[in-house]
Amino acid sequence: MPSPLIYEPIVRAALLEDLGRAGDLTTDSIVPADATATARIVARKEGRVAGLEAALSAFRILDPAMAIAVEAPDGHDVAAGGTIATLRGTARALLTGERTALNLLGKLSGIATSTRALVRAVEGTNARIVCTRKTTPGLRALEKHAVRLGGGANHRFGLDDAVLIKDNHIAIAGGIRPAVERARTAIGHMVKVEVEVDTLDQLQELLDLRVDAVLLDNMDPPTLARAVALVDGRMVTEASGNVTLATVRPIAEAGVDMISVGWITHSAPNLDIGLDV
Amino acid sequence: MPSPLIYEPIVRAALLEDLGRAGDLTTDSIVPADATATARIVARKEGRVAGLEAALSAFRILDPAMAIAVEAPDGHDVAAGGTIATLRGTARALLTGERTALNLLGKLSGIATSTRALVRAVEGTNARIVCTRKTTPGLRALEKHAVRLGGGANHRFGLDDAVLIKDNHIAIAGGIRPAVERARTAIGHMVKVEVEVDTLDQLQELLDLRVDAVLLDNMDPPTLARAVALVDGRMVTEASGNVTLATVRPIAEAGVDMISVGWITHSAPNLDIGLDV
Amino acid sequence: MPSPLIYEPIVRAALLEDLGRAGDLTTDSIVPADATATARIVARKEGRVAGLEAALSAFRILDPAMAIAVEAPDGHDVAAGGTIATLRGTARALLTGERTALNLLGKLSGIATSTRALVRAVEGTNARIVCTRKTTPGLRALEKHAVRLGGGANHRFGLDDAVLIKDNHIAIAGGIRPAVERARTAIGHMVKVEVEVDTLDQLQELLDLRVDAVLLDNMDPPTLARAVALVDGRMVTEASGNVTLATVRPIAEAGVDMISVGWITHSAPNLDIGLDV
Amino acid sequence: MPSPLIYEPIVRAALLEDLGRAGDLTTDSIVPADATATARIVARKEGRVAGLEAALSAFRILDPAMAIAVEAPDGHDVAAGGTIATLRGTARALLTGERTALNLLGKLSGIATSTRALVRAVEGTNARIVCTRKTTPGLRALEKHAVRLGGGANHRFGLDDAVLIKDNHIAIAGGIRPAVERARTAIGHMVKVEVEVDTLDQLQELLDLRVDAVLLDNMDPPTLARAVALVDGRMVTEASGNVTLATVRPIAEAGVDMISVGWITHSAPNLDIGLDV
Amino acid sequence: MPSPLIYEPIVRAALLEDLGRAGDLTTDSIVPADATATARIVARKEGRVAGLEAALSAFRILDPAMAIAVEAPDGHDVAAGGTIATLRGTARALLTGERTALNLLGKLSGIATSTRALVRAVEGTNARIVCTRKTTPGLRALEKHAVRLGGGANHRFGLDDAVLIKDNHIAIAGGIRPAVERARTAIGHMVKVEVEVDTLDQLQELLDLRVDAVLLDNMDPPTLARAVALVDGRMVTEASGNVTLATVRPIAEAGVDMISVGWITHSAPNLDIGLDV
Amino acid sequence: MPSPLIYEPIVRAALLEDLGRAGDLTTDSIVPADATATARIVARKEGRVAGLEAALSAFRILDPAMAIAVEAPDGHDVAAGGTIATLRGTARALLTGERTALNLLGKLSGIATSTRALVRAVEGTNARIVCTRKTTPGLRALEKHAVRLGGGANHRFGLDDAVLIKDNHIAIAGGIRPAVERARTAIGHMVKVEVEVDTLDQLQELLDLRVDAVLLDNMDPPTLARAVALVDGRMVTEASGNVTLATVRPIAEAGVDMISVGWITHSAPNLDIGLDV
Repeated sequence: MPSPLIYEPIVRAALLEDLGRAGDLTTDSIVPADATATARIVARKEGRVAGLEAALSAFRILDPAMAIAVEAPDGHDVAAGGTIATLRGTARALLTGERTALNLLGKLSGIATSTRALVRAVEGTNARIVCTRKTTPGLRALEKHAVRLGGGANHRFGLDDAVLIKDNHIAIAGGIRPAVERARTAIGHMVKVEVEVDTLDQLQELLDLRVDAVLLDNMDPPTLARAVALVDGRMVTEASGNVTLATVRPIAEAGVDMISVGWITHSAPNLDIGLDV
Repeated sequence: MPSPLIYEPIVRAALLEDLGRAGDLTTDSIVPADATATARIVARKEGRVAGLEAALSAFRILDPAMAIAVEAPDGHDVAAGGTIATLRGTARALLTGERTALNLLGKLSGIATSTRALVRAVEGTNARIVCTRKTTPGLRALEKHAVRLGGGANHRFGLDDAVLIKDNHIAIAGGIRPAVERARTAIGHMVKVEVEVDTLDQLQELLDLRVDAVLLDNMDPPTLARAVALVDGRMVTEASGNVTLATVRPIAEAGVDMISVGWITHSAPNLDIGLDV
Repeated sequence: MPSPLIYEPIVRAALLEDLGRAGDLTTDSIVPADATATARIVARKEGRVAGLEAALSAFRILDPAMAIAVEAPDGHDVAAGGTIATLRGTARALLTGERTALNLLGKLSGIATSTRALVRAVEGTNARIVCTRKTTPGLRALEKHAVRLGGGANHRFGLDDAVLIKDNHIAIAGGIRPAVERARTAIGHMVKVEVEVDTLDQLQELLDLRVDAVLLDNMDPPTLARAVALVDGRMVTEASGNVTLATVRPIAEAGVDMISVGWITHSAPNLDIGLDV
Repeated sequence: MPSPLIYEPIVRAALLEDLGRAGDLTTDSIVPADATATARIVARKEGRVAGLEAALSAFRILDPAMAIAVEAPDGHDVAAGGTIATLRGTARALLTGERTALNLLGKLSGIATSTRALVRAVEGTNARIVCTRKTTPGLRALEKHAVRLGGGANHRFGLDDAVLIKDNHIAIAGGIRPAVERARTAIGHMVKVEVEVDTLDQLQELLDLRVDAVLLDNMDPPTLARAVALVDGRMVTEASGNVTLATVRPIAEAGVDMISVGWITHSAPNLDIGLDV
Repeated sequence: MPSPLIYEPIVRAALLEDLGRAGDLTTDSIVPADATATARIVARKEGRVAGLEAALSAFRILDPAMAIAVEAPDGHDVAAGGTIATLRGTARALLTGERTALNLLGKLSGIATSTRALVRAVEGTNARIVCTRKTTPGLRALEKHAVRLGGGANHRFGLDDAVLIKDNHIAIAGGIRPAVERARTAIGHMVKVEVEVDTLDQLQELLDLRVDAVLLDNMDPPTLARAVALVDGRMVTEASGNVTLATVRPIAEAGVDMISVGWITHSAPNLDIGLDV
Repeated sequence: MPSPLIYEPIVRAALLEDLGRAGDLTTDSIVPADATATARIVARKEGRVAGLEAALSAFRILDPAMAIAVEAPDGHDVAAGGTIATLRGTARALLTGERTALNLLGKLSGIATSTRALVRAVEGTNARIVCTRKTTPGLRALEKHAVRLGGGANHRFGLDDAVLIKDNHIAIAGGIRPAVERARTAIGHMVKVEVEVDTLDQLQELLDLRVDAVLLDNMDPPTLARAVALVDGRMVTEASGNVTLATVRPIAEAGVDMISVGWITHSAPNLDIGLDV
């Protein structure tokens, strides 16, 4: 779970984005300040919960005395119609915070739920589902966490926590070897190096360079299987490209260690979650 | 187009989110600082462009001398394989800025493209497609703009620019009339009032209250048609609930003025856009 | 009352503006950290209280255990010499927070008090006093709230929550009609449109365009009365220009709905309020 | 002139406060992006200009190519109807930036003009007009600068750049002497000390403590004259309390060095300045 | 002690700098969320404590329920092996906050300890040790406070709280007298003026200008003694340049009032402090 | 070189920290706004330059037209008295920016110079000098870069870019093996794992766990040599504890790959650098 130090500024900014300058015109004019209410956060569809603490903080910021009972915490599955949490506090805080809370919770639970589907699809194989840097601007830490809650693993969090050498880097360096060597000279001993290859020939060239991982881009399952055989455990193997619920199992069965998928962060549909007051 | 005052802080934060503390380890170690390159932003699939200026600013921030020629500006349609813009500048800026730029451009173009699909589906009717407050935390202004570029219109930008009275407000106020009256007393003369109703009975109750718009929630097309007849032009009519590409046309043909759709902002898949260096 | 999310950052920034880098040199060196004191916030002149919660938060930030009893909350009138609130807490917090709290409270109560004077001057007429966007940079939300506490109403909070078409817009568009039509095409259904006119001829041109409001700028009361008659309830009528305590009543008696006044936010004198320790 | 480092964040925040989330709905929909215009910033009333560079930066931020010719820079007097500056740039930038620029310029020029009136009223005496910490939250540096442009001088900018011992400090310390001694022990050698006294007896007690200045609070001119005679040049003498245009000259003629006035910052009416496009 | 308003943003930024996007990978994966632990902050070497409240706030931010018992508060000396504070709270907060807390505490205690050494070296003389503006970017308020805790005093906190005229100012003004006069015209009555001189001739020129202090730069003790005799109490005398533990006593014995030292803020070695869990 | 996106906010904050509210009182009052000057940044002592671009940005922010010629860029050695850069611009920008620029440049060059000394001391061995997380709050990215410029390498930038399992983690997990296994389950495939051991017994336990690196804490050179022999190339070996210029060579000769040193970031004395105008 990311620290409140990371998610609270996001939630505060989201609340302010919704409150604007004049605040909640509807609620402030209609609902008395001392009215209290009970509300349930309810899943309209089945899915995996993610981002609940961040979402709940929206209500706590608006009403520090809000009483909250969590039934389906982060990482739990909730049935359609199932209650995720019950809240009791001022009616104003519940109505004003609703959209901010649900926008976050729906988005992150959607990511966890889509990830879970892929994870289940490869069950029994050796492959793990990993996310990419194709995340929503400003929400990377939360989205990466949602992927973990969905059973996936995280690839790089940014450009600075590992080296990933792609075709353009190789072209500019004049080959895989000089690219890897330049990177190695510059980085510390706690930084891993991965290289993207498109063909088995490129993979062959990489084999004796002792990098940590190879990204096998856009290869079909038979080619992937040959790549895995070539690597023979000397590096982590990662497949990417055209990964869908339909294609992921054969990719996994090709024997790769990791399957990276951009759409679980950038295009997963929100999980439909509502607030019943 | 939102002002750079609005989108530049978002782009800078996204770049810093990607650069982290150590910067682009791969590019900084492999690519010489004075290497230049040309790159094209290319649509991998057909769609409507949105957010291009914001995306391009990522490159301009990293290389203020970046030369950019735009071929498909915001609001234009681009074919699969079509070039959106061509850039020439330092290779480092192109490689380091790529992901930030594409994350924004793909997300916003995805929203515009999904909106466009709904707009086309209701062509010839009176209905306009409008978005909701179900947006990504921090990106509301950009996402609302993307909806306009897709041919849609904007509903409220926040809780503060119009009144929307929902079931909970009505319940707490003790009826539609007291809710509307409380709101009217509090707001200025430039603020519109909309009321959500679930039944034709509720609509009847609303008719003589002279509000600006009515949100007809989760009604089927025949009921919507009766609602439109009842309203008879005295208010703007807006339908919401279960709006998909399959259902939107009959809803529109029921005669409503507006059809609001949450998923065009919260669940539209990214448009697949790449950078060819 | 604006949310603490809106006013607390303003109060924190004001405290830091006063504390600078070295803090309260006088108090920190003379007053022991554990000394406690009681203080009363007292009106030196009669007026309407506004901004009290924001002002009190200055003390609460410096001493979270500060005990506060409010006697004249926001929107109440206080006599000269009357107590607004009583505080008990560390002497340091009281002395260090005094100026920040009183600067805010005096300014906002001054706005409420000036607004109240105008509101009283038009009592018995149909007219409401409304403020403009002529506010202090950074304090718009608080100043608009103070106007409401003074009995006034709010016009636009910014350039984005309603359309107000002025002479320059009309000139560039080539007439009132094209200006209104361009605006209507761009905006959503929850946004109102007002047009500024200087003459009855312009007003005539506007009558069949069905906008929400007309701003009758710098007209004398007889002209205003003719304008109101022309409009005949089809739009909200708003008068502006040369509104003083002396002129406001005849303007109101001309029958306009709204009278907008810039000086209640930009030039209202502070209400004289002190802290008696 | 305060550095752009100080005023630019204020201007950007003010622009964003006005633009909100959706930007300038009126101008963006009616005025073509490539339309250019010329505008003059014109004083509607006679006064002293202050804050012009900050105000102009609002236009420059919106249109970096804005051409600006200044006729009446900061510190100059401008006649009613006189032009302060002429601008040529995009019509959108002129119309969108107008209110932010004028709000700042009107406020700061109002402070300079009120200060100038007091300065002129004491011409020929030894007294200087100084401001206090009774400033608008967030604008202290700019308001203090406006006072200097009006011919006044600045007292403390905050609680941290000098010591000012008031009645409460004296009461807690148990006397003037212990209060002064405690302060002296704590502060560095570049910090001045001033003590507030209400009576000549208190002044007598202060005389041999060798502080830098004495604040003679709420004394009438004859008492001030006696105080000045007692001090006899050993400290700077400052008068405060009930200073108006009517009372300031006799106060000055009592021989004090400084006359501090809160209302020139907290209650000076804006100078009426407009933009003619 | 600087206000939490000043140090908390520094501590939060430092925690976020350490947490990055993914948080404490090691602790979050190994240590259960509900594990508690006790830890002692222990000095590995003898020294003077400074910055403890700021350091402890790192733990309080991560675990608001952290129980803390302080044994050696700010300004106290602690022996090698001595306990500064004991903490009991979640093991995660202790392990995650450790480095941020110790980085601050070690740095500020190092400054206090180095200052103390110089203060002790001049004991019995009239001289005080003062710091300069040669501080760490972002930490000036905290470092200046650490100097006071070490027994030193503070020179200017910035360019804005006093005037210090150096050789370049004198050269541009065309002499000491015009430089002093220009400054005097511009500043308020609560601002002190100091002038830097390199020779006794320059000092002679300064004597009748009645400034508050003179900075005697890079003079040897005999010259300093002659300077002090020349000044004869009319100004505060301050020596600077080549001040080390070895040279400071003879400088002090030359009779100067102040000895300013840059390295106690910019180059004092950290005090070695650890956390024993 | 860290991106301006990273260092410019630090430089702006440092300038504002120095300018305070009133700006550079001395320079603004004495130096005409249009006076220009030439200045040289000169090393007073021999050393390695680091942070020059960040330091120069202080001048560029104050005078965007500042002309700068760099003679000794980042990573170059400069002799005592040698010129690092020559600047020509407004005299005000040179005098006002001097301290901010030199504070940064002196600190970072000091780190590079201390690092260089250690790097030279181990020349000819296999060992690299690496820094730790014992950095100045807010400056980690810049300080880590300075270490690289001094010839050293970087260890972790934060808690989130690699796993480092220390004694407390091991104690809580109940052994090295469970600690390593818990971490492995949680992290992605691009994250390295290092474990700290104090004894050869612990090292033995670690050998078959296939982590990436081992931190040999506080071992003397003979023990280190035995540890290196035990490891036999299966992991990166890193020594830490009591590393000084005197002790570093024997540690390096024990055969370790990395020697981590805290004091090169937290206690390296500033390099003495001045500005000659």
